[in-house]
Amino acid sequence: MSDTNSASTPVAGPLLSAIDSPSDLRRLHPEQLPQLCSEIRQYLIQTLSSNPGHFASSMGAVEMTVALHYVFNTPDDRIVWDVGHQAYGHKLLTGRREAFATGNRRLGGLSGFPNPDESPYDTFAAGHASNSISAALGMAVAARMQAGDCPPRRNVVAVIGDASISGGLAFEGLNNAANTPNNLLIVLNDNDMSIDRPVGALSSHMAHITTSPAYNKLRYGVYRALKKMGLVSEKSRGRILRFNNSLKSLLSHEQNIFEGLNIRYFGPFDGHDVLKIVRVLTDIRDMEGPRILHLRTIKGRGYAPAEADPARWHAPGRFDPATGRRAEAVQGAVPKPPKFQDVMGDTLLELARRDQRIVAVTAAMPTGTSISTMQAEMPERVFDVGISEGHAVTFAGGLAKDGMRPFVGIYSSFLQRAYDHIIHDVALHHLPVTFCIDRAGLVGEDGATHHGAFDLAYLRSVPGMTIASPRDERSLRRLLVTAATLEPAGPFAIRYPRGGGRSIDWRCALKPVEVGRGERLVSGRQVALLTIGPVGAGDAADAVARARAEGIDVAHYDMIFLRPLDEKLLEEVAALDCPVVTVEDAIVDGGLGSAVLEWMSAHGFNRRITRLGLPTDRFVAQGTPAQLRAICGIDSDSIYKALLNSCK
Amino acid sequence: MSDTNSASTPVAGPLLSAIDSPSDLRRLHPEQLPQLCSEIRQYLIQTLSSNPGHFASSMGAVEMTVALHYVFNTPDDRIVWDVGHQAYGHKLLTGRREAFATGNRRLGGLSGFPNPDESPYDTFAAGHASNSISAALGMAVAARMQAGDCPPRRNVVAVIGDASISGGLAFEGLNNAANTPNNLLIVLNDNDMSIDRPVGALSSHMAHITTSPAYNKLRYGVYRALKKMGLVSEKSRGRILRFNNSLKSLLSHEQNIFEGLNIRYFGPFDGHDVLKIVRVLTDIRDMEGPRILHLRTIKGRGYAPAEADPARWHAPGRFDPATGRRAEAVQGAVPKPPKFQDVMGDTLLELARRDQRIVAVTAAMPTGTSISTMQAEMPERVFDVGISEGHAVTFAGGLAKDGMRPFVGIYSSFLQRAYDHIIHDVALHHLPVTFCIDRAGLVGEDGATHHGAFDLAYLRSVPGMTIASPRDERSLRRLLVTAATLEPAGPFAIRYPRGGGRSIDWRCALKPVEVGRGERLVSGRQVALLTIGPVGAGDAADAVARARAEGIDVAHYDMIFLRPLDEKLLEEVAALDCPVVTVEDAIVDGGLGSAVLEWMSAHGFNRRITRLGLPTDRFVAQGTPAQLRAICGIDSDSIYKALLNSCK
Repeated sequence: MSDTNSASTPVAGPLLSAIDSPSDLRRLHPEQLPQLCSEIRQYLIQTLSSNPGHFASSMGAVEMTVALHYVFNTPDDRIVWDVGHQAYGHKLLTGRREAFATGNRRLGGLSGFPNPDESPYDTFAAGHASNSISAALGMAVAARMQAGDCPPRRNVVAVIGDASISGGLAFEGLNNAANTPNNLLIVLNDNDMSIDRPVGALSSHMAHITTSPAYNKLRYGVYRALKKMGLVSEKSRGRILRFNNSLKSLLSHEQNIFEGLNIRYFGPFDGHDVLKIVRVLTDIRDMEGPRILHLRTIKGRGYAPAEADPARWHAPGRFDPATGRRAEAVQGAVPKPPKFQDVMGDTLLELARRDQRIVAVTAAMPTGTSISTMQAEMPERVFDVGISEGHAVTFAGGLAKDGMRPFVGIYSSFLQRAYDHIIHDVALHHLPVTFCIDRAGLVGEDGATHHGAFDLAYLRSVPGMTIASPRDERSLRRLLVTAATLEPAGPFAIRYPRGGGRSIDWRCALKPVEVGRGERLVSGRQVALLTIGPVGAGDAADAVARARAEGIDVAHYDMIFLRPLDEKLLEEVAALDCPVVTVEDAIVDGGLGSAVLEWMSAHGFNRRITRLGLPTDRFVAQGTPAQLRAICGIDSDSIYKALLNSCK
Repeated sequence: MSDTNSASTPVAGPLLSAIDSPSDLRRLHPEQLPQLCSEIRQYLIQTLSSNPGHFASSMGAVEMTVALHYVFNTPDDRIVWDVGHQAYGHKLLTGRREAFATGNRRLGGLSGFPNPDESPYDTFAAGHASNSISAALGMAVAARMQAGDCPPRRNVVAVIGDASISGGLAFEGLNNAANTPNNLLIVLNDNDMSIDRPVGALSSHMAHITTSPAYNKLRYGVYRALKKMGLVSEKSRGRILRFNNSLKSLLSHEQNIFEGLNIRYFGPFDGHDVLKIVRVLTDIRDMEGPRILHLRTIKGRGYAPAEADPARWHAPGRFDPATGRRAEAVQGAVPKPPKFQDVMGDTLLELARRDQRIVAVTAAMPTGTSISTMQAEMPERVFDVGISEGHAVTFAGGLAKDGMRPFVGIYSSFLQRAYDHIIHDVALHHLPVTFCIDRAGLVGEDGATHHGAFDLAYLRSVPGMTIASPRDERSLRRLLVTAATLEPAGPFAIRYPRGGGRSIDWRCALKPVEVGRGERLVSGRQVALLTIGPVGAGDAADAVARARAEGIDVAHYDMIFLRPLDEKLLEEVAALDCPVVTVEDAIVDGGLGSAVLEWMSAHGFNRRITRLGLPTDRFVAQGTPAQLRAICGIDSDSIYKALLNSCK
């Protein structure tokens, strides 16, 4: 860590410190808003420098956030955030300033994303991208229906980034927005930047809109003028549309993609000119029909180091607010175990050098999955398809069908978006696609929407899917080789967690393992522990050592493969005729424990089986991984106790 | 049935009968193609009148199909069909003419959809909509990579309908099409018609393109002329793009949405002018870069009754080819049990009349789900969002968040597309969305892509989800009331199969049931049968009757709810201290059998448990439902044998 006192309690400026809810904000004079924005930025810098979180997105969204709460009557009016990275300013203005400073992303504290269970100002879940338009459209339609023949009592605003809007779900929302009577306002926060770079034709299209704003500005100006003169009626959507159409034909300007979808377009405007945004929002607030407001913003705005390198400042960890020096960079030369994602990234590159058929696909996460390593050396063989997990998987299916061996790197909880695509476009024809499922299991501070809890359960029912999880770095490396070289090859899922394991020396030879073969790590006769994944080299190994030190004769097996199950290993376990404990960092119903139980039952073995894993009856909130493992009962202590109880 | 001899073996005309593969087709003179198209139509009419299948889509795609195989060197060139309804002509031309006449959609015969395991001409699975662009893009990129610096050896064509292209996956594919070097050709088969009516702004946009074709025709004409004069080089994509752009600015015409995504657009052309299509395809075949060819077609083309009512002729069943009289219509007045979908549709309308909060959402299937019943009476409370299952669910989440009680009607296998949306946008905040999951379990003739096999397994791991399946019509009705009136309400899934049950008298009072409460149907002590869903009133009831007639003292319980499990019922079963047999029309691993096993294990009961259900190690192909139930071991005979074996 830096030696500056970066952990000091942040002090809010005079305006911000008086705002305990948006109604306080709405009492300010418009001319005070720029100062408030500045105070919010300072507060974010102070807080996040010592209590890490997402940084650059929220810095870029300050003026937009202030303007929205200033113009709209929240929480009665609804703001739906798309991906909560940008919503810290929103948390500060909605009664959570102090909780944010002390408890953001902490156990029992605030979620790092909007969370309806936390505040009435948080209207919808915002952990997975591209859902805001559909959800807000539902709310806008509800408002309209509940109002009957009167104007709706509520306004609804979706705030979506330029990366999120490229997701298929956002398009489905846009395509349906003009379909039913509603007054949805979509605010496009266009910072030309997702976590990595933005991808896709739509992104270029928006750049194009920006370079030719004259028409839109003129149209907005004409609209304002006519409105002031009372020549535009808000009651008739038909009239407004005709107004737009005639103006358009007058100017003979190219149609933009949003208007092609029958959504009225306003912009682009400077997303850091808070007074301008307030003015525009006030003007279009009560318009009828779906509208989109395009704001250009700068990620990291107001903090020079972040503006210069916004991708690295997406979630920078601790930093010195004065210099921008980040804590990571200050750490010494003591070697530490690599992240699993880096073992994957380095190994994939080695494999790709050997086999021309290997290509990589990722959905807007080249850095987060370390597929960037391969991308740097062979960019033409890496496909970053943007936020579109479904396309990533089906595209990989097409690549595999015609002779390539794609590796698809996606976070576990985001891969849920591609469940059908895995079944219908890969598994059905047994195509050799390898799924590198990162962030599997508990992820810690990102909380409920980001835990990779479901993958073992939902993949286990997919016919023909090989499912593996490595105990350690070498095991991950060897599983990757196995997937790359297996003949005949089929769909192969390898799940591994966020962060690193325990091994520094991980560069073993690239030798495949036998598919469906587990390992006996420790022999014993009194109780058998069966694990899958890094818990086997971590908490479970610790629990086994502790139990054995106390004289309990524990056997420990690493299954490695959930499918195919190692039946020889299970026969060995059954032959021990002792209680069995299973542990997995995944939903407890439907994964390893269930598979072992099913196998034992089908083969006529009645063994006492204790299954440890994540709960099926509730979502797990944020906290440190260690805290959450303890809460879920898969930490070393819980495993030790389960072993003990089994022997009673 | 009609009294005409509609079951006679179809006779192919002189041209068609000589075509055993597309290479035979390619030896024809272009002037012969219209006659061939006519022969294909006659053959389809003859065959499908006696051996039912999808009709109108393939009738509309005849010329397009002939032209594609005529111009492209299939199977080396790839044609990727989107939704296989339109691909019957393709099957006739690719060596499957006789197999089609005798075995379409039959056990051991042809799949009703393109199936790569069936023919090298079938390049990709096409049971779920909107996947063709992504899959074909994968193939096109593979072809380009494999060719190195040479031109790709293969052309790749995606054929997509105007309804499928509204799916988010198709948009993700389009948005990525211009991202990497590829020569993908997308053929848009625009018949202004999905199974029901087309939905969404994109659909209107295409209608708009059609009404102003002058510019596109002119552009295509200029391009052809320049090419003939040798003034257009195919080597440089850049040059072509400049050509297009300058022409565009010259004409000051509105940009279309595809060109907004950097995909060159050609059309619209008459999709029934086979010579014209051949000419255009030949011209654009070897162009570089992604292109879209827009063909206008008429669903049911060439058969007057189908042209007049294409929705009813989507899959018409048997009919008299001479008159178009359909077998259904001729059936007498003997009452028969309603389809489960109709019980749902009627009941939903009754519930909606009582509760203003109830709204319905469907994804392009109002007729297939019978949500059309409510739609007819209260159209403003029914939302058909087109082919966009993800949006349907997230939109319902938004509606529910602001006080509505949405019922989402989607087929089980299509709901897989919305798995993440169920978790993140509904279950996470425990929103009261009811999922009416139609076509659950084995669907019969539509085969592997359409069986609703996975729902119990993938829903069971979703925290807070109530999961139920009715035994019969009355039970379905009462579950719907329960979901509609439960307080506090949360996500509620009700799965029921295609077709009908056994009860004629189903209009019971609208009385809710107790959530999580099963029923003892038959008392017994020797073996306990636990079922969920209609198998309980069907095959399982028959098996129980047969076993009891032979002196086996079977107990039979209908669980009704997979979650919450009826623990009192399970305690009663455990107390019998007898073997247990579970039956479900769903993947056997992860559903009811696993849940019972887990409960028994967790509560220390070691019972012999035999689990019957669909296999997890393979996909189930097409056949009649009865055939498939027997193959999967969940028919009456298999259940009887399992009961018998359990007692040994």
